[in-house]
Amino acid sequence: MAVGQFYLSCLVLGSLGSMCILLTIYWVQYWRGGFAWDGSVLMFNWHPVLMVAGMVVIYSAASLVYRLPRSWVGPKLPWKLLHAALHLMAFILTVLGLVAVFSFHNHNKITNLYSLHSWLGIATVFLFACQWFLGFAVFLLPWASMWLRSLLKPIHVFFGASILSLAIASVISGLNEKLFFSLKNDTNKYSSLPSEAVFANSLGMLVVVFGLLVLYILLASSWKRPEPGILTDRQPLLHAGE
Amino acid sequence: MAVGQFYLSCLVLGSLGSMCILLTIYWVQYWRGGFAWDGSVLMFNWHPVLMVAGMVVIYSAASLVYRLPRSWVGPKLPWKLLHAALHLMAFILTVLGLVAVFSFHNHNKITNLYSLHSWLGIATVFLFACQWFLGFAVFLLPWASMWLRSLLKPIHVFFGASILSLAIASVISGLNEKLFFSLKNDTNKYSSLPSEAVFANSLGMLVVVFGLLVLYILLASSWKRPEPGILTDRQPLLHAGE
Repeated sequence: MAVGQFYLSCLVLGSLGSMCILLTIYWVQYWRGGFAWDGSVLMFNWHPVLMVAGMVVIYSAASLVYRLPRSWVGPKLPWKLLHAALHLMAFILTVLGLVAVFSFHNHNKITNLYSLHSWLGIATVFLFACQWFLGFAVFLLPWASMWLRSLLKPIHVFFGASILSLAIASVISGLNEKLFFSLKNDTNKYSSLPSEAVFANSLGMLVVVFGLLVLYILLASSWKRPEPGILTDRQPLLHAGE
Repeated sequence: MAVGQFYLSCLVLGSLGSMCILLTIYWVQYWRGGFAWDGSVLMFNWHPVLMVAGMVVIYSAASLVYRLPRSWVGPKLPWKLLHAALHLMAFILTVLGLVAVFSFHNHNKITNLYSLHSWLGIATVFLFACQWFLGFAVFLLPWASMWLRSLLKPIHVFFGASILSLAIASVISGLNEKLFFSLKNDTNKYSSLPSEAVFANSLGMLVVVFGLLVLYILLASSWKRPEPGILTDRQPLLHAGE
């Protein structure tokens, strides 16, 4: 695959990912009253924005670091640091997204963690935390043997893709739940598909399309860093692009 | 990987998959009034059962056909026929599941296809239909060249796994939505986590665990049919198990 094609795909993904975040902000700002950090429903509004930004878009960017042809040559450590730092940023946004919803619930005496959306969401964040710490301990710190690393790598890659899939399922169920909560009035019922419903449903579908593209690039073998000692038809292209 | 280990994993997956179907039936029978085919809410009750059975469990069984070591040796055609037939069975159950929900809606003057759950669900079924017909036309009928088949195979495999992931996201959002619809009374509110909520949330999480296991086996390279001409350490085990 040509280097130009990689960077074109990155541009498409970057635009789609930015659109996911911007459209979530637009939805919340235009239809749900905007943002605040005061325990009110405006504080809840940070929850969808931070989850889409953290657990979907920045998480995806962090996961795709090793798919950049530039990362295939030279020392791996700077790319590992970038991979870990971007994932840490995704994790911090995710935790802030959880703070937003827990504070809103506590302030308004709403039970935490009762819906299936919340069970799946919290399990996904827990898996993400385990994945980050295990990844940091095994792949970034110097103590682990090559044997342990190559044993754990396919599991790390599989859980990386799985956590993104679970995050998308959490986003879909959360958006769906929020629209049923919000669009209740007879003049503005979800079932009559007002403009907010069409907009937010389309946003959900866009998150799914973005996630599928990321998963395709993550899992397709032609996008992977060649293993040391294996020559592929990509390498001459790489050097040409350096 | 030893043949015994494969069949042990199949047993675990078979048990988990059966549990997904049986627990969905139990939920609907015990808490939601059971089944009927008369346009009432009891007809709706077929929807979750048929979707979990068709789009998740039988779909997974159909997808895993080529992961059985027995399918790696000898002619491929019988396994292709089994793969297509099981997927057709999954598709028929899925269509019946759609008939159940559309009939319930039409009979009770409820709008069809307005929620994000329904948009994602119908898109998943549409992708499944395209995948089946394209798979049938290219991989089962004899006209397609080897070049076309090897071009489309990774796309077919990727969409196979993607459709399962989207089906699971649809199941989660659908279960979540149904529990918000049903658990409304003050004595039986979803947020107070009555026994039905704990049961159905756990059922949703079980579907997720089952789906992740299936995806792991589908995507892990050690489970794949060896390409012709490539000898691996699995083949002696295979012959030993024949």
